[in-house]
Amino acid sequence: MIGVDWGTSSFRAFLLSPDGTIRDRREGARGIMTVPAGGFPSTLREEIGHWLEAGERQVLLCGMVGSRQGWRETPALPCPAGIAEMAGAVIDLPFDGARAKLVPGLTTTDEAGVPEFIRGEETQLAGLLGAALAGDGVACLPGSHSKWAHVAGGRVTSFTTHMTGEAFAALRGHTILGRMMREGPPDGKVFDWATFERGVARAGEPGGLLHHLFGVRTLGLTEDSAASYLSGLLIGHEVASAMPAGAVVQLIGGAALTGLYARAIAMRGGKTISHDPDAAAAGLTLIGRLISWT
Amino acid sequence: MIGVDWGTSSFRAFLLSPDGTIRDRREGARGIMTVPAGGFPSTLREEIGHWLEAGERQVLLCGMVGSRQGWRETPALPCPAGIAEMAGAVIDLPFDGARAKLVPGLTTTDEAGVPEFIRGEETQLAGLLGAALAGDGVACLPGSHSKWAHVAGGRVTSFTTHMTGEAFAALRGHTILGRMMREGPPDGKVFDWATFERGVARAGEPGGLLHHLFGVRTLGLTEDSAASYLSGLLIGHEVASAMPAGAVVQLIGGAALTGLYARAIAMRGGKTISHDPDAAAAGLTLIGRLISWT
Repeated sequence: MIGVDWGTSSFRAFLLSPDGTIRDRREGARGIMTVPAGGFPSTLREEIGHWLEAGERQVLLCGMVGSRQGWRETPALPCPAGIAEMAGAVIDLPFDGARAKLVPGLTTTDEAGVPEFIRGEETQLAGLLGAALAGDGVACLPGSHSKWAHVAGGRVTSFTTHMTGEAFAALRGHTILGRMMREGPPDGKVFDWATFERGVARAGEPGGLLHHLFGVRTLGLTEDSAASYLSGLLIGHEVASAMPAGAVVQLIGGAALTGLYARAIAMRGGKTISHDPDAAAAGLTLIGRLISWT
Repeated sequence: MIGVDWGTSSFRAFLLSPDGTIRDRREGARGIMTVPAGGFPSTLREEIGHWLEAGERQVLLCGMVGSRQGWRETPALPCPAGIAEMAGAVIDLPFDGARAKLVPGLTTTDEAGVPEFIRGEETQLAGLLGAALAGDGVACLPGSHSKWAHVAGGRVTSFTTHMTGEAFAALRGHTILGRMMREGPPDGKVFDWATFERGVARAGEPGGLLHHLFGVRTLGLTEDSAASYLSGLLIGHEVASAMPAGAVVQLIGGAALTGLYARAIAMRGGKTISHDPDAAAAGLTLIGRLISWT
């Protein structure tokens, strides 16, 4: 089977063995925003055509490709949902010469009734539903829009989104705080762990995030450390709001970002187990096995 | 006397009677960022030269003109500080043909020891220290960097800054949330009070600001109402963090913004009394009277 996670700004595909082993992969910047109207079948063929020519006939897609801006808008599946529900909700996409099916995202509402959506990350969660989250637990997928998911009995029961990464980029790039900072990623060479931890600790103090932000300016930080402090402040606020007390958090993401979250979670009394984003390959495999492809 | 509030992006000057009456005024965009190195005396002369020619000889300045990027960096005055302390801390600026003096800003630390600074707004506060805040009280000056000040015995004892306005602009202009919004100010014609109030109420719910932001995207708001909701959310978070329970808040600012804050404060159980930013003229007058100009 071929698994595809087609997001807003990125395209990732896996050539998968029946046991979920990743035999080959493609990754690139051909996110759905780069695809012209009607161009999804041809773009997909350009990306994975060589695998199709080698005989693969099953393609399972997920991600923003199922949104209004994607190939076909697909209603998200309400929680609670596990692997079986995800497999039962896939829809067919017209794609010559192969069977293409789409995993819809998940939806829920938070405590106050505000809608929540996931498109793509549900397959990373699904990868853990067959293993670390086969029972009950909590998962965090850090990113521009970080997701915290609650799992019970091997099904995702609810989740919340936190715009931490996108807020970081906007505050750093477009407020006076950015003038204090050296160029480059906060997790790059100049990352300052001690100052990151000061930011995380600050998030636990009274005053609120909008007040805490001003400290980035007044604390006399160096241009190397100010971005690390802002990162700690925002991640600290996210963890303070989202993490159940004393949780063991399954962290899914790239090494740099999950490293930051692991530290912030530990500072607030939680524990973490880290998983790489290839969990999506395991999830797509588990879902794909339950689908009737004929 | 001539009073001047010279900020980062704006220049405001008042021609004042001894009783504080504003006889004339100038306002424009010649903030300190537009002034070339060494150009402060000549720029000031261009702006208020006609008043000097008419015989005025006393000029009292405040604002970012006293910062490192301004005419002369002046150490801020530590709290607690009232009108007498502000008058005692003015410094002389070299300015041919008139006496020019500069009111330094104020500084304090918040509960956690993080430094805070005001440059300019202290003269608006000073205007109230002779009247509504002659005793004890709380003041809020909404803006890009909103200030909440606590007053006891007619002196400013502490204050906190909240980057609410600047965060609004960055989130609206540079995240996916802005794509939901019509162009134009949030307090313009399309302002939607009912949705603003939903945002304020949302700020009182669990989940944290970074989570609440995502609701701007998922609540199905119209492009007219999304900015109003974001405004309510951010102002609601600020008020929730900054306002003492049941406070009577002296609000100082323009009518549009103080109107929003008055509504948010009322929704959280506070009361407000609104003052226009010309409070700075009253404050400069009170400070100027205590200065030896000879």
